[in-house]
Amino acid sequence: MDIKAAVAFEPGKPLRIETVHLEGPKAGEVLIELKATGICHTDAYTLSGKDPEGLFPSILGHEGAGVVVDVGPGVTSLKKGDHVIPLYTPECRQCRSCLSQKTNLCTAIRATQGKGLMPDGTSRFRIGKDPVHHYMGTSTFATHTVLPEIAVAKIREDAPFEKVCYIGCGVTTGIGAVIYTAKVEAGARVVVFGLGGIGLNVVQACRMVGADQIVGVDLNPARREMAEKFGLTHFVNPKEVGADLVPYLVNLTGGGADYSFECIGNVQTMRQALECCHRGWGESIIIGVAAAGQEISTRPFQLVTGRVWKGSAFGGARGRTDVPRIVDWYMDGKIQIDPLITHTLPLERINEGFDLMHKGESIRAVVRY
Amino acid sequence: MDIKAAVAFEPGKPLRIETVHLEGPKAGEVLIELKATGICHTDAYTLSGKDPEGLFPSILGHEGAGVVVDVGPGVTSLKKGDHVIPLYTPECRQCRSCLSQKTNLCTAIRATQGKGLMPDGTSRFRIGKDPVHHYMGTSTFATHTVLPEIAVAKIREDAPFEKVCYIGCGVTTGIGAVIYTAKVEAGARVVVFGLGGIGLNVVQACRMVGADQIVGVDLNPARREMAEKFGLTHFVNPKEVGADLVPYLVNLTGGGADYSFECIGNVQTMRQALECCHRGWGESIIIGVAAAGQEISTRPFQLVTGRVWKGSAFGGARGRTDVPRIVDWYMDGKIQIDPLITHTLPLERINEGFDLMHKGESIRAVVRY
Repeated sequence: MDIKAAVAFEPGKPLRIETVHLEGPKAGEVLIELKATGICHTDAYTLSGKDPEGLFPSILGHEGAGVVVDVGPGVTSLKKGDHVIPLYTPECRQCRSCLSQKTNLCTAIRATQGKGLMPDGTSRFRIGKDPVHHYMGTSTFATHTVLPEIAVAKIREDAPFEKVCYIGCGVTTGIGAVIYTAKVEAGARVVVFGLGGIGLNVVQACRMVGADQIVGVDLNPARREMAEKFGLTHFVNPKEVGADLVPYLVNLTGGGADYSFECIGNVQTMRQALECCHRGWGESIIIGVAAAGQEISTRPFQLVTGRVWKGSAFGGARGRTDVPRIVDWYMDGKIQIDPLITHTLPLERINEGFDLMHKGESIRAVVRY
Repeated sequence: MDIKAAVAFEPGKPLRIETVHLEGPKAGEVLIELKATGICHTDAYTLSGKDPEGLFPSILGHEGAGVVVDVGPGVTSLKKGDHVIPLYTPECRQCRSCLSQKTNLCTAIRATQGKGLMPDGTSRFRIGKDPVHHYMGTSTFATHTVLPEIAVAKIREDAPFEKVCYIGCGVTTGIGAVIYTAKVEAGARVVVFGLGGIGLNVVQACRMVGADQIVGVDLNPARREMAEKFGLTHFVNPKEVGADLVPYLVNLTGGGADYSFECIGNVQTMRQALECCHRGWGESIIIGVAAAGQEISTRPFQLVTGRVWKGSAFGGARGRTDVPRIVDWYMDGKIQIDPLITHTLPLERINEGFDLMHKGESIRAVVRY
């Protein structure tokens, strides 16, 4: 079938809306009609050409929501009409990673996904005779996409696509890091570095699980108001505190954070996030993605005296199991998404969504199909 | 009372056996007649003058075993005749750290212990009129010492002092890191960096809990034989493997270690220990103490893809609760200590014990009083 898609032809250039041929689903695959997709920093990173694993031409986008319109042979867990969220981290429930019960990083289709291909080693997208790469296994900057059944979360039908698409990446990354990776408990004291979209989701998850103190660290004082609506109890501007940020945070939290989260992708704040943790038990979770080649450092004494350094990818969430639960939390009013979707655009104006993000004007811009 | 002690008068000089005046136990304190003490690298580090917190003159030693010979007012958990192991990490069961149930690093007497003093801010030791510092709250290089009740583990009376004194530091540090910090489970694949005393205790604890694969990494091939007796399944000499040690270990363990332990104190091997862990869940535990000012580094990607970086002090063991259990494990034959005690000396020859350690001839030298 012919579909419309925003195609990334080369690094650093705007996306181009094109008619693309999409092959139907093969065995174990489903065809999804997308209804909405978020625009994320990761898409921009790949489009910029800085991502060493970026492939061109490709159809970017990994934060979608839509409806199943066709299923290939052997598909048992999904049917036509199901409302779904595509998963860039699949959940096969069969591989060694899934069976370990210790990680969400399913490895069933990792090799082909990294090459921009479906599990059979081919692409379903082409323009004329030329194949176009899939991206993160999802390619949601298109009216339709094909995914393996194991990379699709079935969600409730009353959830609005243009809101819950954000659960496909940013919401789950922040909420999940609190609930699945750190397992923050009621009464905890938490420090969050960076109050953008991920940081705000960390903040509201901490509130949801009953944290006593939720400290936000951000250079931009304009972030304070929204963060307080999401549950922030203390705002700290490093520009005002100066070089003694770590001891300031240790003092503010009565000895150090029980948990800290780095939502920026800066290796200096990653170090600060670890070192502001409480001696004996404080855990620091890296969520932000640092530039290629950068390294984190600290004195080993920080770890020997009980701090723990971890990271989180897709919030530690198992997509098919946990994403539908996060959709429920949104529908039940336990978490907010609406204030974070600051802009909604048609596909034709998708490049404006990237501009808004680069200028810091949007928290999340969403494309509605 | 007058006692005999090996006194550290100044950095870099041998200890001198002196008659020292020891004041009796005050409220909440006990007087212990030491029967044996191990000589540990930490004593040598402080004696060398490199320890920035080292104090002189002082009575070193922190790996003792002995008998309670007097108790001060208000002592309820110990009585004359009790067999005990002094604890450099106390367990008050009342402070915020103990009550957190997340750490063994009791902070009840931390401030005074760091100053070489008893909790009331004074020393019990003096030579003539001059006070001599306590060391790590234990000062076991003496025929008698005074400790707070909360820093004494009561052990069974049939345990041989000259063996179980080693549980006061090295044994518990290695065994505990496996059982209390990492919580290694049956079937796990483990890599241990450094097969000295701590590493061998890590190895035997991994065997005790049923690890499937216990890989040891050491530059010294002579360490292999003893390590295999303690449960090692694979010996790796980095000199033979070369620059590709990390991928070699990842391959050897079928994708990476479930747990790795750094028992050397080298920041380069700390990095290798982290990076040889399995994607998704591998945890690396730093036990070795690096030189002052040195830093560990890695790419944050290592953590974001699921590896965890931790440390362990005193094996994560709560001294009064866990040390008596480790004594039981020794007495029940679940762990071995005897082959690790390679040398036994009288107090007068304690400096020979340091020489044996520096030359790498001893695993553990023990002084018998």
